[in-house]
Amino acid sequence: MVRLKFSIELLYDIVDPTCDFIFNIHAAQTRYQTIAAEQLVISQPIHPLLHIEVEDGTRHMRLQARQAPLKLHYDATVDIKHHVESPQRLTEMPISALPQQALRYIYPSRYCQSDRLRKLAMREFGHLTPGYERVRAVQQWVHQRVEFVSGSSNDSTSALDTLIAQTGVCRDLSHLMIGLCRALNIPARFVSGIDYGADPAMGPTDFHAYVEVMLSGRWYLFDPSEVSPPMGLVRIGTGRDAADAAFATIFGAVKTYAPLITIEALVDTHQGWTLPRHCADLLSSADHVIPN
Amino acid sequence: MVRLKFSIELLYDIVDPTCDFIFNIHAAQTRYQTIAAEQLVISQPIHPLLHIEVEDGTRHMRLQARQAPLKLHYDATVDIKHHVESPQRLTEMPISALPQQALRYIYPSRYCQSDRLRKLAMREFGHLTPGYERVRAVQQWVHQRVEFVSGSSNDSTSALDTLIAQTGVCRDLSHLMIGLCRALNIPARFVSGIDYGADPAMGPTDFHAYVEVMLSGRWYLFDPSEVSPPMGLVRIGTGRDAADAAFATIFGAVKTYAPLITIEALVDTHQGWTLPRHCADLLSSADHVIPN
Amino acid sequence: MVRLKFSIELLYDIVDPTCDFIFNIHAAQTRYQTIAAEQLVISQPIHPLLHIEVEDGTRHMRLQARQAPLKLHYDATVDIKHHVESPQRLTEMPISALPQQALRYIYPSRYCQSDRLRKLAMREFGHLTPGYERVRAVQQWVHQRVEFVSGSSNDSTSALDTLIAQTGVCRDLSHLMIGLCRALNIPARFVSGIDYGADPAMGPTDFHAYVEVMLSGRWYLFDPSEVSPPMGLVRIGTGRDAADAAFATIFGAVKTYAPLITIEALVDTHQGWTLPRHCADLLSSADHVIPN
Amino acid sequence: MVRLKFSIELLYDIVDPTCDFIFNIHAAQTRYQTIAAEQLVISQPIHPLLHIEVEDGTRHMRLQARQAPLKLHYDATVDIKHHVESPQRLTEMPISALPQQALRYIYPSRYCQSDRLRKLAMREFGHLTPGYERVRAVQQWVHQRVEFVSGSSNDSTSALDTLIAQTGVCRDLSHLMIGLCRALNIPARFVSGIDYGADPAMGPTDFHAYVEVMLSGRWYLFDPSEVSPPMGLVRIGTGRDAADAAFATIFGAVKTYAPLITIEALVDTHQGWTLPRHCADLLSSADHVIPN
Repeated sequence: MVRLKFSIELLYDIVDPTCDFIFNIHAAQTRYQTIAAEQLVISQPIHPLLHIEVEDGTRHMRLQARQAPLKLHYDATVDIKHHVESPQRLTEMPISALPQQALRYIYPSRYCQSDRLRKLAMREFGHLTPGYERVRAVQQWVHQRVEFVSGSSNDSTSALDTLIAQTGVCRDLSHLMIGLCRALNIPARFVSGIDYGADPAMGPTDFHAYVEVMLSGRWYLFDPSEVSPPMGLVRIGTGRDAADAAFATIFGAVKTYAPLITIEALVDTHQGWTLPRHCADLLSSADHVIPN
Repeated sequence: MVRLKFSIELLYDIVDPTCDFIFNIHAAQTRYQTIAAEQLVISQPIHPLLHIEVEDGTRHMRLQARQAPLKLHYDATVDIKHHVESPQRLTEMPISALPQQALRYIYPSRYCQSDRLRKLAMREFGHLTPGYERVRAVQQWVHQRVEFVSGSSNDSTSALDTLIAQTGVCRDLSHLMIGLCRALNIPARFVSGIDYGADPAMGPTDFHAYVEVMLSGRWYLFDPSEVSPPMGLVRIGTGRDAADAAFATIFGAVKTYAPLITIEALVDTHQGWTLPRHCADLLSSADHVIPN
Repeated sequence: MVRLKFSIELLYDIVDPTCDFIFNIHAAQTRYQTIAAEQLVISQPIHPLLHIEVEDGTRHMRLQARQAPLKLHYDATVDIKHHVESPQRLTEMPISALPQQALRYIYPSRYCQSDRLRKLAMREFGHLTPGYERVRAVQQWVHQRVEFVSGSSNDSTSALDTLIAQTGVCRDLSHLMIGLCRALNIPARFVSGIDYGADPAMGPTDFHAYVEVMLSGRWYLFDPSEVSPPMGLVRIGTGRDAADAAFATIFGAVKTYAPLITIEALVDTHQGWTLPRHCADLLSSADHVIPN
Repeated sequence: MVRLKFSIELLYDIVDPTCDFIFNIHAAQTRYQTIAAEQLVISQPIHPLLHIEVEDGTRHMRLQARQAPLKLHYDATVDIKHHVESPQRLTEMPISALPQQALRYIYPSRYCQSDRLRKLAMREFGHLTPGYERVRAVQQWVHQRVEFVSGSSNDSTSALDTLIAQTGVCRDLSHLMIGLCRALNIPARFVSGIDYGADPAMGPTDFHAYVEVMLSGRWYLFDPSEVSPPMGLVRIGTGRDAADAAFATIFGAVKTYAPLITIEALVDTHQGWTLPRHCADLLSSADHVIPN
């Protein structure tokens, strides 16, 4: 088990008389990721509306702020005890066996135009044995072809753009991996979170984006950016792509500032809290499992 | 109330040893659209898996067919008693008041890149009074600018392409209207169905696509193609855009044929079954209503 | 006549052992724009290769620099005595009457995809009287729809992107105007230069981009950005679009710095040198005229 | 030497009162391709305007037809005696050594967005020895990745689309090869023509498109579609891409029919007329050679 403690601080200057926000900064609550402690402080006297998606534990918070600075400080301590599986046991599923809730993740979406990637995906991966090895090959392909370059993409950059440009950030690498998996009829989705264990040379701690792929009835983590051990990923949002899982969707005119994020791992051998580390097994922190 | 009787016949030659399909051809079951009778005949001895989305009544059918011709014949008689509302009473909703289930329909999707349409939408419609009049202005704008031309688009045509090309089919007009509504922060979604009452000069009866927009807590019908009275629209599928609501998603190599579709209105003054006709009120056939 | 004196200073740090450049910073030499004085200083001991395009007076300079800082300082004093014409006398030309050299400017190019703008162009401008009034309507349409926002576009932004985004810089507005003119079968091309008379609030003097349209056998200036009086435009490069007329095309790895540019108008009533000012007539500074 | 005899028949029904055309169907006249005989019959009493581009021998014909059927029948007998070169002797040229007329062919164009292909081109081909081998590697890469599928693209399909779709026709394969060459700073251009020796199973004789690349100061033929021996290619048009080299550009409303094309090789050992055949050497049929 890992225990991670993180904080997020967001600051906005609101220009319009009022401005609506949908935030997705709360740690997700799943069977494998539980909240030991959390706290949210909002600088304006607002009653936010918090909603949890039963299916994946994502928590959205809506609020309306007024024309003034708005500061949010959220911190949480989460315990993550992944479901761990040996890769060899995992297989791709026939369409007919997919859980109904996974179907939406085989269709193309805003940033993952899998419908246009079928021929490329079949050429590159069609001959590989279906299952973990094939998904791993997709992840490696994206990791090796797309160079991680901060600032190399923008809000409208899609998987097709990234395929051509061969540069991007974590969000772009994830979109391309998702697009290729879906083009192979493998359900894949976008997860936003915060990562522990990234190389400090990559810059200050920031939001991260990675991928979940359904194998043998369960969602497993894959990180095409490979910035940190998957064990160090705190789960926040889940969606088809970044359109669904932005940490903040803003409905009005505001001045934005860069988020301030910290994360640390709490280690205690008595409690069984270890440092996140790389491991050969596949990890899952999502709830959904095919009912027997 | 209208009673409509329709049939759909689909034919495929399957090339691969087996081929998975997800069909969405069953009439949706909602509070306002009920099934008086229906029948499905499949030419291969298959047990399809049928699933109903509780939220919008869409029914998906999955099946796996083998290397042979596959013929589906579905017919149904549906009774539609729309929720009817006077347009003047309908208003746009603040983000903070939207039902949670509507939020996914304000985000951009594969074919409706609302994130890139904000400035255009604000220029064209930002000055209009929020509410029905504004949504109606969007529908009229799309109807007047985009010429309905059969065969003028393809599977990858998106709202941005349609905005530039200024031609399209019902699916394209719907995508553009949805994209513009979302760019105005108005939830909008894609509905597939079959329409009664189209001009026979437009060609044989085919699948149709139209739009639902949330006003005052309820989804209302808008048809930017204006091919038939909204009262004559049989509801089949619901989704973010055509990626979610294809009548057939095919996972394998098949030869396809054009669908054969028929529809008729049953009229009986004793029963109260009238012909679909144009009316000034807005219609809703979807279930979702904000709970008080 | 106007006499304008300007200077351009460019600085690069060359990373590769050698690096090729194609510069287009010399004032064009045409019948209407002559060079009173000019000087070029290059910080490395290089013999550049200078070439003049006979057709439009553009001067390209090629050079190969070595791994070190490279500084270019160019200054010139140019006399511009435009061909001046009353707009009412100018007409669009039938394809059959266009000079051969104008034909390349009716085809689509990298950033001006006129082939996809035909329907839009016909809808917006097809009903207008061909000639100056129609071209002026295109220029106004672009000016009014596309907001000039520094930094709102990048190197790969095309006319279609600008049409959707409705923001851009001078280059983007020019590309959209060119695309629309060509879609109407009116030859239009891209001119790069430096402008005298811009509002200092727009930021420091920079390169500028504007449009030339062929009417009655001659190329006339149109500036959809309207940042300065057309009379204050020093002509440098000419091309189908920005791909042809970049001030620097760099073949290798270099660190670049923002160019430093100055411009001033020399006024002398004895010499007949006036300040650039707005006027109702159309101006041409290009050579090409249909031979009688 | 090869002697090829071909004919082109074009038919249009003109809807507008008059309609302008620019045709590019005449065999090009170069040092290596000469016209033994030719004849043009036009069904309407029109005086077309014929123009030859001095640089590459392309002949454009402009004409204005009236509201009636328009039929053109062109046939020609051409003698082609290619400049032949051993591949090993050919090298890429530094930018500083390129002839001025080649520079336009290193910039991106409508269908060949080389600016967006730099990173991909460098990854795939950057490590190869510059020269023939590298260009051949690009040609092979395109040939192997992009499947030739009739009808798989349309008028607006660009190199980026083809890179993603991995299908196309000769025009699309050519655009992608050109885009990749330019991204490597190698001048490359589009040639339209008619090919002798294609597999009859590919369908009736049609217009063809292929590529010319400048090596060692001369333009050499490369055909990424590999539909016929390069020796069997009759040269018609030359341009940056298909936007410049369409066989017909039409300015008005017409009904079009498929062109009818025939081609045959005349063989006469006395005269030295051989059948076009595959050979290991590189061929050039363009005029431009760097002056010593």
